[in-house]
Amino acid sequence: GFANVDLHRPKRQGFPEVVFGEGKTADQIIAIVRTLKEHDDRVLVTRVTQDKAAAVRALFPELVYHDVARLLYWKKEQAKTKETDAYIAVICAGTSDLGVAEEAAITAEMFDCEVRRFYDVGVAGIHRLFHHIEAIRAATVSIVVAGMEGALPSVVSGLVSHPVIAVPTSVGYGAHFQGLSALLTMLNSCAPGISVVNIDNGFGGGYSAALIHRLACQKG
Amino acid sequence: GFANVDLHRPKRQGFPEVVFGEGKTADQIIAIVRTLKEHDDRVLVTRVTQDKAAAVRALFPELVYHDVARLLYWKKEQAKTKETDAYIAVICAGTSDLGVAEEAAITAEMFDCEVRRFYDVGVAGIHRLFHHIEAIRAATVSIVVAGMEGALPSVVSGLVSHPVIAVPTSVGYGAHFQGLSALLTMLNSCAPGISVVNIDNGFGGGYSAALIHRLACQKG
Amino acid sequence: GFANVDLHRPKRQGFPEVVFGEGKTADQIIAIVRTLKEHDDRVLVTRVTQDKAAAVRALFPELVYHDVARLLYWKKEQAKTKETDAYIAVICAGTSDLGVAEEAAITAEMFDCEVRRFYDVGVAGIHRLFHHIEAIRAATVSIVVAGMEGALPSVVSGLVSHPVIAVPTSVGYGAHFQGLSALLTMLNSCAPGISVVNIDNGFGGGYSAALIHRLACQKG
Amino acid sequence: GFANVDLHRPKRQGFPEVVFGEGKTADQIIAIVRTLKEHDDRVLVTRVTQDKAAAVRALFPELVYHDVARLLYWKKEQAKTKETDAYIAVICAGTSDLGVAEEAAITAEMFDCEVRRFYDVGVAGIHRLFHHIEAIRAATVSIVVAGMEGALPSVVSGLVSHPVIAVPTSVGYGAHFQGLSALLTMLNSCAPGISVVNIDNGFGGGYSAALIHRLACQKG
Amino acid sequence: GFANVDLHRPKRQGFPEVVFGEGKTADQIIAIVRTLKEHDDRVLVTRVTQDKAAAVRALFPELVYHDVARLLYWKKEQAKTKETDAYIAVICAGTSDLGVAEEAAITAEMFDCEVRRFYDVGVAGIHRLFHHIEAIRAATVSIVVAGMEGALPSVVSGLVSHPVIAVPTSVGYGAHFQGLSALLTMLNSCAPGISVVNIDNGFGGGYSAALIHRLACQKG
Amino acid sequence: GFANVDLHRPKRQGFPEVVFGEGKTADQIIAIVRTLKEHDDRVLVTRVTQDKAAAVRALFPELVYHDVARLLYWKKEQAKTKETDAYIAVICAGTSDLGVAEEAAITAEMFDCEVRRFYDVGVAGIHRLFHHIEAIRAATVSIVVAGMEGALPSVVSGLVSHPVIAVPTSVGYGAHFQGLSALLTMLNSCAPGISVVNIDNGFGGGYSAALIHRLACQKG
Amino acid sequence: GFANVDLHRPKRQGFPEVVFGEGKTADQIIAIVRTLKEHDDRVLVTRVTQDKAAAVRALFPELVYHDVARLLYWKKEQAKTKETDAYIAVICAGTSDLGVAEEAAITAEMFDCEVRRFYDVGVAGIHRLFHHIEAIRAATVSIVVAGMEGALPSVVSGLVSHPVIAVPTSVGYGAHFQGLSALLTMLNSCAPGISVVNIDNGFGGGYSAALIHRLACQKG
Amino acid sequence: GFANVDLHRPKRQGFPEVVFGEGKTADQIIAIVRTLKEHDDRVLVTRVTQDKAAAVRALFPELVYHDVARLLYWKKEQAKTKETDAYIAVICAGTSDLGVAEEAAITAEMFDCEVRRFYDVGVAGIHRLFHHIEAIRAATVSIVVAGMEGALPSVVSGLVSHPVIAVPTSVGYGAHFQGLSALLTMLNSCAPGISVVNIDNGFGGGYSAALIHRLACQKG
Ligand SMILES: Nc1ncnc2c1ncn2[C@@H]1O[C@H](COP(=O)(O)O)[C@@H](O)[C@H]1O
Ligand SMILES: Nc1ncnc2c1ncn2[C@@H]1O[C@H](COP(=O)(O)O)[C@@H](O)[C@H]1O
Ligand SMILES: Nc1ncnc2c1ncn2[C@@H]1O[C@H](COP(=O)(O)O)[C@@H](O)[C@H]1O
Ligand SMILES: Nc1ncnc2c1ncn2[C@@H]1O[C@H](COP(=O)(O)O)[C@@H](O)[C@H]1O
Ligand SMILES: [Mg+2]
Ligand SMILES: [Mg+2]
Ligand SMILES: [Mg+2]
Ligand SMILES: [Mg+2]
Ligand SMILES: [Mg+2]
Ligand SMILES: [Mg+2]
Ligand SMILES: [Mg+2]
Ligand SMILES: [Mg+2]
Repeated sequence: GFANVDLHRPKRQGFPEVVFGEGKTADQIIAIVRTLKEHDDRVLVTRVTQDKAAAVRALFPELVYHDVARLLYWKKEQAKTKETDAYIAVICAGTSDLGVAEEAAITAEMFDCEVRRFYDVGVAGIHRLFHHIEAIRAATVSIVVAGMEGALPSVVSGLVSHPVIAVPTSVGYGAHFQGLSALLTMLNSCAPGISVVNIDNGFGGGYSAALIHRLACQKG
Repeated sequence: GFANVDLHRPKRQGFPEVVFGEGKTADQIIAIVRTLKEHDDRVLVTRVTQDKAAAVRALFPELVYHDVARLLYWKKEQAKTKETDAYIAVICAGTSDLGVAEEAAITAEMFDCEVRRFYDVGVAGIHRLFHHIEAIRAATVSIVVAGMEGALPSVVSGLVSHPVIAVPTSVGYGAHFQGLSALLTMLNSCAPGISVVNIDNGFGGGYSAALIHRLACQKG
Repeated sequence: GFANVDLHRPKRQGFPEVVFGEGKTADQIIAIVRTLKEHDDRVLVTRVTQDKAAAVRALFPELVYHDVARLLYWKKEQAKTKETDAYIAVICAGTSDLGVAEEAAITAEMFDCEVRRFYDVGVAGIHRLFHHIEAIRAATVSIVVAGMEGALPSVVSGLVSHPVIAVPTSVGYGAHFQGLSALLTMLNSCAPGISVVNIDNGFGGGYSAALIHRLACQKG
Repeated sequence: GFANVDLHRPKRQGFPEVVFGEGKTADQIIAIVRTLKEHDDRVLVTRVTQDKAAAVRALFPELVYHDVARLLYWKKEQAKTKETDAYIAVICAGTSDLGVAEEAAITAEMFDCEVRRFYDVGVAGIHRLFHHIEAIRAATVSIVVAGMEGALPSVVSGLVSHPVIAVPTSVGYGAHFQGLSALLTMLNSCAPGISVVNIDNGFGGGYSAALIHRLACQKG
Repeated sequence: GFANVDLHRPKRQGFPEVVFGEGKTADQIIAIVRTLKEHDDRVLVTRVTQDKAAAVRALFPELVYHDVARLLYWKKEQAKTKETDAYIAVICAGTSDLGVAEEAAITAEMFDCEVRRFYDVGVAGIHRLFHHIEAIRAATVSIVVAGMEGALPSVVSGLVSHPVIAVPTSVGYGAHFQGLSALLTMLNSCAPGISVVNIDNGFGGGYSAALIHRLACQKG
Repeated sequence: GFANVDLHRPKRQGFPEVVFGEGKTADQIIAIVRTLKEHDDRVLVTRVTQDKAAAVRALFPELVYHDVARLLYWKKEQAKTKETDAYIAVICAGTSDLGVAEEAAITAEMFDCEVRRFYDVGVAGIHRLFHHIEAIRAATVSIVVAGMEGALPSVVSGLVSHPVIAVPTSVGYGAHFQGLSALLTMLNSCAPGISVVNIDNGFGGGYSAALIHRLACQKG
Repeated sequence: GFANVDLHRPKRQGFPEVVFGEGKTADQIIAIVRTLKEHDDRVLVTRVTQDKAAAVRALFPELVYHDVARLLYWKKEQAKTKETDAYIAVICAGTSDLGVAEEAAITAEMFDCEVRRFYDVGVAGIHRLFHHIEAIRAATVSIVVAGMEGALPSVVSGLVSHPVIAVPTSVGYGAHFQGLSALLTMLNSCAPGISVVNIDNGFGGGYSAALIHRLACQKG
Repeated sequence: GFANVDLHRPKRQGFPEVVFGEGKTADQIIAIVRTLKEHDDRVLVTRVTQDKAAAVRALFPELVYHDVARLLYWKKEQAKTKETDAYIAVICAGTSDLGVAEEAAITAEMFDCEVRRFYDVGVAGIHRLFHHIEAIRAATVSIVVAGMEGALPSVVSGLVSHPVIAVPTSVGYGAHFQGLSALLTMLNSCAPGISVVNIDNGFGGGYSAALIHRLACQKG
C-alpha cells in the first residue's frame, strides 16, 4: 500500500513506530492503526483532529482520544506497567501551554513511565515554582514546556541536578514568530544540562524523556 | 561643516546631544566635541575605540575615557549634582555583559542620576539575584542587561513594582544571532512592565532610565 | 485547577495579574475571572473575541467589553481614582492602529492613570502632529503606536523631554512582515529616550507607561 | 579577455557602463578603464579602495579619486555640461551617511546633473530639515539617504511634490542588521512617492535620480 | 472623528490623500470618502474587498469598482485630462500578476497619466518582450510588475533609457516567502536605473511613476 | 569583584560551575580559576584561545590545554573515577567537526564518564557508520556532532535504542548560515529520541550526556 | 486576451508550456487550455483545486484530474510513447510527501518518461531504503522527495552513481518553516551530485529529471 | 587516523572522494592526499588557500593549483580522456563570478568532461548572451553562475532544451545577504528545467553537470 510501516522498531528501539497524524486522512490512519494493532501491544497517533479521531474510533472504539493533547492511543491490557517509584516531572509555564505539556506527559506514560505534572508555574511569578521545587528535584528528568519568552527551563535547570528536556511552544504573538523566540531562548540557555526539541513537539520531549527515564530505572 | 549639531536639545529635551562615535573619524569627533563644549556643560561620546579616544584626549585631556564601556565624557564642575536618595538599579546577568552595563550606568550618571550596580546575578544561579532583591526593589527603575537567553529581565520584573528597561547584549554564539535571541526573549516577556532597547544599546537604556528617574525625583 | 493565578501580585507589584485571553476558552476565562473578582478590586482580560466576551458577560454582566481594543474589564466602584492633573499621551499614526492604541489607553486607565488621545497624526502629514505638540509635551510619558514604517516615535521623541514607549503594530503588508518592520524601526531610532514593547502589545505599552506615570505622580 | 564590456550602452541608454569595483583586482579595473576610455567620454568606477585607486591612477592620473564616496572617475573636457537651473536634492540624515550620500551626488554629477546637498538633517532634530525645506521643495527629485531607523524619506516625501529616491545605509548596530531595518522602513513608508534602492547603493540612487532629472530637463 | 484626513495634500503635493482600504470598515471608508468628495475633485481607495465596495457604492454609486485591482475610484467630470502623447508603460511578467499591474495602471490614470499595458511577457519566453520593445522604449517611465523570481525589471532596464519602477508581487510559493524573493531580486539588480516599491504595492508604483511622468510632461 | 562565581553548584547540581572563556580576558579567567580551585576538585574553562591559555598556565601549570577543543581543564588527583563499563558514544560526521566533538568528549570525561569516539562517519558514505554500529548501540547515550546538512543524528537515532544528543556545527558555507541549517535539520528529525543543543555547543552536549550517563550508572 | 501563451516552446524546448494553475480562475484556465489544445499534443496544468478541475472538465472531459498531485492533464492518443527500458526513480521519505512525489512522477510521465516509485523509505528506518537499493541504482536519475529534516537525498546520493534531483516538501511544523529546513538540508548536502528545486515543486523536479532522462535515452 | 577517507567511491559512484579543503590544516590535507593518491587516479581538493596549496605542493609538486578557483588537483597521465564532441556550457553573468565558474568548469574537466566557457554575459546587456546562444544551445547541459539578482539562469533556461544547473554566488552587497538573494531567484525561476546548488558551490554544480554529461555521452 501507500505506507511502509516500520515494524522492526520494537526490536530495534524498544518502542513501536508512532504515527504522525497531521496531513494524513482518517482512512490512512485507520489502515496504519490496523497494521500496528496486529503487530504491537500499543498504538500512539499524534496531532489528530477531533473529526479524524471520531472516524478512527468508530472502527477501533478501544482507542482513547485526548482532545487537549490531540492524541489517539491504546495499550494492550497486559502491556508492561511501571515497577518503580521514579517519575518524570512535566512542568509548564502558563495555562496556554497545557496541550503541549499533556502531549509530552501522555507520550511518556504510553512508554511506561510514571509522570508528575507541575503546571502554570512561569517565571513572572517565580514563587509558584519554588513551591514545588523539592518534588521537581526528586524526578529523574524534567520536561519543561514554555511559550512566550521561554525562560522557565533555564531557571529549572539551575535548580536541579538531572537532565532537562526543553519544549518551546508557539504560544505568543508579534515578535514571537510562532515559537521561534522561545526556541532560541532555550538553545541559548546559560544553565547547562538543557537539550531542546522542536516547537510544540510535546511528543518528542516525552519520547526523549522516556528513553532517559528507562535508563534511570534499569537498575542493577 | 559636515555636521549639523543639534544645539537646541538642552532646551527641547533637558539633555545635550550625545555623539554616536562609531563610524566617525577622530577628527570628526574632535570637531563635534569642540562645538559641544562651547555650548553645553557636559559631553558624552559613545562607542569610541581606544585609539580615537587617545586622539581626542590629546586635545581635550579633561575628557575621561572608560575602556570597558567605550565612553568618552566630561562634565563641567558646576554641573548639577543629585539632590536625592533615589537610585537606578543596573543589573547584569554575566561578567561578559559588563561593557554594556557600564555604558548604561555611566550614561545615567552623566545625566545626574544616582546608580547602584548588581552584576553577575544571572538565572542559572538565581539565589545570587535573591541575595540583592530588597535593594533592587527600592530603586526607581531597573536597567537589566543580559545576553545568552536573556531571561533575567522577566525574573526581575516579576519581583519589583517599578519599570524595567531591558537591554539585550550580543554575548552568546550559534543560534544567538548576535543578540537577536536575547532581544526576542525580552520583547516576549510574560512579566509585564518591561520595555526594550536595541541590542548592546547600553546608552539607550541608560538614557531612558534617566528620563524616568528624573520624573520620580521631581517630587512635590 | 488548571490555572495557578498569581494572587500575590497586588502586594508584590501594586497591580493584580492581567489575564491573557488569547488561546483560553470562555470557560477558562470565567474560572479565572471568578477567582480574581474574589481577591482583587479590578479585572482586566486582554485579546478577547466578541464571542468569548459575550459568554463571560452572561455570568458577569458588570464587566465591560471594548470591541476595538478587544478588552474585557471591571473596576470596583470604590477603586482608587486619580488625584492629579498629570496625564499620559497616547498617540497613534493611522486609523488602522486604533485597536492597539485603545488597548494601551484603557490599560493605563485601568491602573488609575489619566490619559489623553492624539490619533491619526502620522509622519506623512506631519503638520497634524505639530498641531498638538504642546499638549503632548505636557504629558508625563507618551505611548506612540504606529504600523507601516513606524517612524512616528522617532519624531515625537525628538520633540519632547519625557520617556516614550513605542508600540509597533502589525498594520502593513508585503515587506512589513506582520509588524517586524515597524518594530525594527523603533529599536533603531536615532532619537534617544524610546523603549519598545512587542508588536501589537498595547497592553504592555499601557502597563509600562502606568508604572512610569505612577512614579511621576507620587510627588513629595 | 575575461571581461565583456557593454559598449552599446551609451547608444542604448544614454550613459556608458559603470564599473562595479568591489571584488575586482586593480589589474582588472585598469584593463576595463582602458577599454572604456577608448570608447566613451566619461568613466565611473564604484566601491574602489584607496590602494586600488592609487594603482589605477599611476597609469591614468587624470582620474579623480573621492575617498569618502570611494569613487574613481573622469570626464572628457568637452563632455556635455548642464544647461538648466534645475537641481537634484541630496539629503542625508546623519554625518555617518556621508559616504553613501556623496556616492549618489557625484554619480548624478557625472551624468550632467546639478546637485544641491542637505546633510545631517535627521528626524531626531526635525527643525534642521524645516530650515531647508523650501530649497528642497524646489528640486526636481530628492535622493534621501538614511541609516538607523531610516525615517527621513517618509518625512521628506510628505513635504514635497516630486519623486523621492530613498537610499538605506548600513549605519547602525544590533537589530539594524546591516541596513535591513532602514530598508524595510523605506519600503513600508506611509508617504507615497518613494521608491527604494539597495542598502548603501548610493550609485543606484544617483543613477535613477539622474534618469528622472534628465526627463525633467528635456523641456519642450 | 476617528480619522484626521490630510486635506492639505493637493496644495502640498498636487494629489489628494489616497485611502488605504485594508483594515478599515465600510463605515470608516464611507465617512472618509464623504469628506474627500467635499474637498477634492477625485477619490481613490485601495485594497477594497467586493463587499465593502458594494456598501460604499450603495451610497456613492458614481464610484467605480475594479475587482481585479481591488480599487474604488471617482474623478469629477471637469478634472484635468491629459494634454500629451507621452505615456507610462505598465509591463507584467505573468497572468497572475494582473491585479497588481492594474492597481498601478489605474492609479497612474487617476493622476492624469496616459498608460499603455504590456502583459504576460516574462523572461521564460523572452521573445514576447522583444516583440513590444520599441513601444516600451518610447515611454517616459516603465512600471515593471513581476512575481516568481522577479527577473523582468533587470531585463527591461537593460533595454530602455528611462527610469524603471519595479513592483514585486507575492505570486509564487515555497522559497518565495510571499514576495520576498522577487523583492530581493529587484533590489539587487545589476542593471542600473531601477528603484523598487513594496511587495504587491501597485499603488505605490503607479504613484511614483505618475510623479515622474508629470515632470516629463511639464515641458517648456 | 566583577564576578560572582556560583559556588553552590556542586551541592545543587553535582558539578562545579564551568567558565565560559569567550569574551573574558586572561586576567578575568585567572581570577575565576583561582576561586574555583580553592573550592572545587576540578576546573573546566571553555572556548579559550591559545594566547589566553598560555597566560593562565603560566600561573597554573597543572591545567591542561587542548587546542582543538579549545578547553583548559584540571582535575584533582583524588577526584572520583569511573566504576563502570558503560560509555558514551561521541560520533561525528566529518573531520572538520573534530573540534566540537572533542569539546563534547572531554567535557563528559571531566564529569567522570567513559567515552568512545567514532569520527568521520557521515551519511555520504554510510557504510562507515554501519561498520561501528554494534559498538554504538551498546552505549548509554550518543552525542552526534555534524555540520553541513546535519543528517547524521537522524540516521543514528533510527538505529539505536538510547537517547541521542545532537550537536550542530557551523561547518559549511553559503545557505548553511553558520550552522543554522544543521540546527534546523536536527530539530526537525523524523527519528524520535533526539534532543538538540546550540550550534557548536560541544560543552552543552557533553554536559547533558554526562547527566544522562550518571543516571544510567547509578544502578541498584 | 489577458494571456500570452508561449506557443514556441515545443520548438524551442521540446515540451509545450505548462500552466501554473494556482491563482488562475477556472475561466482563465479554460481559455488557456483551449489555446494549448489547438496547438499541442498534450496539456498539463499544475496546482489545480478540485473545484476548478471540475469546471474545466465540464468542457474538456478528456482531461484527467489527479487529486493527490492536484494535476489536470491530457495527452493526444498518438503522442510519442517511450521506446526504452530506462526509468526515473521517484523516491519519497514519508506518506505525507505523496502529493509532491506524484506531481513529480506524473510530470515526468507526461513528458514520455518511464517512472518507478519507491515510497515511505525515510531515514528513520533506513533498512526500508536498502531493500530497494538495487532497483534505485539502475535508474537514469532519481527524484528524491522529503519533508521534515530532508535527509533522504544525502543518503541516496551517497549510494548511487547517477544525478539526484532533491525536492523539499513543506511537511513538518515548528522550526520547519514551511519547508525551509528541508530545503537548506538539501542545499548543504555533503554528498555531491544533488541539485535542488523549490519547496513542494514536484513539477520542477519531474521536469528537470525528464530533461536528463531524455539525454540518457537519446542513445547512439 | 583522524580521517576515514571513503575509498569505495570510485566503485560506488564512478568518481573518487573530493576533499573539502576549507577548515582543514595543510597537514590534514597532505595526509588525505597521500591516501587518495595511493588508491585513485585523480585527486581534487576544493577551497584551498594559496598558503595551504604551497605547503601541499612542496611534497606533491605534481598537483596543480588554480588560484581563482582555489582548487588543487592532479590526474594520472593514463586517466581516461574524453571520446566525444559533446560539451558542457559554463556560463557566468559577471567578471566577479569567475572564481565560482572556474571551480565548476575545472571540476567537470577533472571528471573527463569537455567544457566551453561563456563569461560576462549577464542580463543587464542581454545581447551579449544572444551572441553565443547557438553554441550554448548545442551543449548537453548548462551550468549558469550568477550573483547580484541571479536572473541569468531563467533567461538561459527559456532559450535551451537541455537541463540547467544554476549556481548562485555571494557577489553583491546590502540586501543580497551573501548570496541568499541570488539563491532564492534561482529556486523561484518561472522557467522550468533549472535545479540549484548551494551558494558559491561551483564544485557541486560541476559535479552534477558531469553526472548528467556522462549519461548523455554513454551513447548506444
Ligand atoms: N496582551 C498581553 N500581552 C502580553 N502579556 C499579557 C497580555 N495580557 C496579559 N499578559 C500577561 O500574561 C500573564 C498571564 O498569562 P496566563 O497565565 O496565560 O493568563 C500575566 O503575567 C499578564 O501580565
Ligand atoms: N561553551 C559554553 N556554552 C554555553 N554555556 C557555557 C559554556 N561554557 C560555560 N557555560 C556556562 O556559562 C555560565 C558561566 O558564564 P560566565 O558567568 O559568563 O562565566 C555557566 O553557567 C556555564 O555552565
Ligand atoms: N507548479 C509549478 N511551479 C513552478 N512553475 C510552474 C508550475 N506550473 C507551471 N509552471 C511554469 O509557469 C509558467 C506559466 O506561468 P503562467 O503564465 O502564470 O501560466 C510556465 O513557464 C511553466 O513552466
Ligand atoms: N566545495 C565543496 N562543497 C561541498 N562539498 C564538498 C566540497 N568539496 C568536497 N566536498 C565533499 O565533501 C566530502 C568530503 O568531506 P571531508 O570528509 O570533510 O573531506 C566529500 O563527500 C566531497 O564530495
Ligand atoms: Mg498563568
Ligand atoms: Mg557568571
Ligand atoms: Mg490617516
Ligand atoms: Mg547628527
Ligand atoms: Mg504566462
Ligand atoms: Mg570525510
Ligand atoms: Mg512512514
Ligand atoms: Mg560585466
